[in-house]
Amino acid sequence: MTIEQQLQHKINNKTKPVGALGMLEELALKIGTIQHSLSPRISKPHIVVFAGDHGIAASGKVNPYPQAVTAQMVLNFVNGGAAINVFTKQHNIGLTVVDAGVNFDFDVSLPIIHAKINHGTTDYSEYNAMSIDEVNAAIEKGRSIVQTLFDEGCNTIGFGEMGIGNTSSASLIMHHLLNLPLKDCVGRGTGSTDEQLQRKLDTLEDVSKLHELNRYDITPHQLLCRIGGFEIAMMAGAYHKAAELNMIIVVDGFIATAALLVAKQYNKSIADHCVFAHCSDENGHRKMLEHLYAKPILQLGMRLGEGTGAALAIPILQSAVAFLNEMASFESAGVSGKE
Amino acid sequence: MTIEQQLQHKINNKTKPVGALGMLEELALKIGTIQHSLSPRISKPHIVVFAGDHGIAASGKVNPYPQAVTAQMVLNFVNGGAAINVFTKQHNIGLTVVDAGVNFDFDVSLPIIHAKINHGTTDYSEYNAMSIDEVNAAIEKGRSIVQTLFDEGCNTIGFGEMGIGNTSSASLIMHHLLNLPLKDCVGRGTGSTDEQLQRKLDTLEDVSKLHELNRYDITPHQLLCRIGGFEIAMMAGAYHKAAELNMIIVVDGFIATAALLVAKQYNKSIADHCVFAHCSDENGHRKMLEHLYAKPILQLGMRLGEGTGAALAIPILQSAVAFLNEMASFESAGVSGKE
Repeated sequence: MTIEQQLQHKINNKTKPVGALGMLEELALKIGTIQHSLSPRISKPHIVVFAGDHGIAASGKVNPYPQAVTAQMVLNFVNGGAAINVFTKQHNIGLTVVDAGVNFDFDVSLPIIHAKINHGTTDYSEYNAMSIDEVNAAIEKGRSIVQTLFDEGCNTIGFGEMGIGNTSSASLIMHHLLNLPLKDCVGRGTGSTDEQLQRKLDTLEDVSKLHELNRYDITPHQLLCRIGGFEIAMMAGAYHKAAELNMIIVVDGFIATAALLVAKQYNKSIADHCVFAHCSDENGHRKMLEHLYAKPILQLGMRLGEGTGAALAIPILQSAVAFLNEMASFESAGVSGKE
Repeated sequence: MTIEQQLQHKINNKTKPVGALGMLEELALKIGTIQHSLSPRISKPHIVVFAGDHGIAASGKVNPYPQAVTAQMVLNFVNGGAAINVFTKQHNIGLTVVDAGVNFDFDVSLPIIHAKINHGTTDYSEYNAMSIDEVNAAIEKGRSIVQTLFDEGCNTIGFGEMGIGNTSSASLIMHHLLNLPLKDCVGRGTGSTDEQLQRKLDTLEDVSKLHELNRYDITPHQLLCRIGGFEIAMMAGAYHKAAELNMIIVVDGFIATAALLVAKQYNKSIADHCVFAHCSDENGHRKMLEHLYAKPILQLGMRLGEGTGAALAIPILQSAVAFLNEMASFESAGVSGKE
């Protein structure tokens, strides 16, 4: 029997009707298959939040909050006051915050990973967002951060982000890679009005033309150069390394899924390591999930980022592994099967 | 300001875009409103599993598993081998198992609540399931069990059940109270084949005629007498007392929601205390939820009962309360609002 068959047999012999634990059974099968084990483990689950600024955000054309909020929220993470702090603490999930490219000089003593590629990207409504060297540096740093966590015993990882304006970058990535009109990819982000949303869409239409995002011959590196964010590039590298290390990857919302779409351009098999935490309320995320044939675990109408969806889904993964490891079988419990 | 307004103000001032935590914000508002507190607490959450047998199940006309499985599963609960054991242990949720009317004599030393009303109901395809005295005894016992847990400090409670054949009783309740054709109310239960499902439907059509379930003048007591289960009647009493005690009630799946529909006949305001854990995969549950204008927290395709949906949803309630109590506000964190 293959490992999948052995896992399915074990799942079906638990004291419950076949299939009665629904998605938990699918998750147990997937996690067991990834770990090639009938007794898989979730070890030291961890969320990494990549923070970065976007040059275009300084213009205010795509976002209602000022760019300074990115740095302010990094300090909020450090002080334990953000949603991701609350949820990781609740579920005993590790949390690492990375300055991937915030437009603020943090005190070097702050307990974050200081991996600033630059002080925010260049405004991609006029120029390229970053250089190829910066793309490479960001990807390499994302890889090394994951390697370190893996070396410390983590086998399950989720990636979150913070970056005022980064739904715009994610929308442009979706628009290019899924070949969809921008109106299907652009949403309200942190809460734009109708007027702001139209302005965001108009701005991004111009960006798409400037960077010729309708062309098929753009490499993922070039895409990141033109419209990427440092946090998105770093996350793409992190996905890569996590898949290489055979970790369970818990995919968060709109921006995290956009970064996954980029990472998949380098290695299609990354998605085999992914479970999808939730369907975000941000316009476009559902379409991204459909494109990936992904079934989200939670549907709570959240659209916050920071890895909050991933943090809330990790207990469900733990439930899946726990029933597989801890429930009695019909035989062991002396429970009769169907007549 | 009303307590709802004060809660909404507090929620909106947390360091996140307004509404970005989706259903968690709705849950925080509901829990805070029930507790009339800006700092609500989930205290000693508990699942009570009511087990009972159904006379009709002995015939095998409505269920693929033998009736003996109810008692076997109670022993499985006691030994910690069932799904509800795994999930309550994972989330530090209390678990109480009640013999409401299992057709088996358990050793009195077993750590369950021995509240047997009778050795299973009478086969309602021929007679009434139980007497009025039995309905009263079951409801009273359900009330006293909840009172005891409340006295021990529990303020959040979910009810599960175990009873071979009890989806039939729940379907008949739904059919009568929601005035829907049986085919919309009957599902596969623990996993019937197409043929078994048709036989179940045919059998329940006959039961509906015998007990005149299409009549409007049946009291909830009479309904329970005719086609109820002891676990369902006891759960109805438990809902009642929990609402009286102003507890948060976490409603599980198909059978638990049917018991709620009965309980609501006695007191409409019970639903104000309820949050709905999940949408079960059992046919009919979605329609019940729509009837109650209830938005389920989880949609994991589960259909196991035992309170498993409630156990998995309680951490989400805890997340809702935690963000309300622990997240920083824009002011306290020094984060800028919208421009």
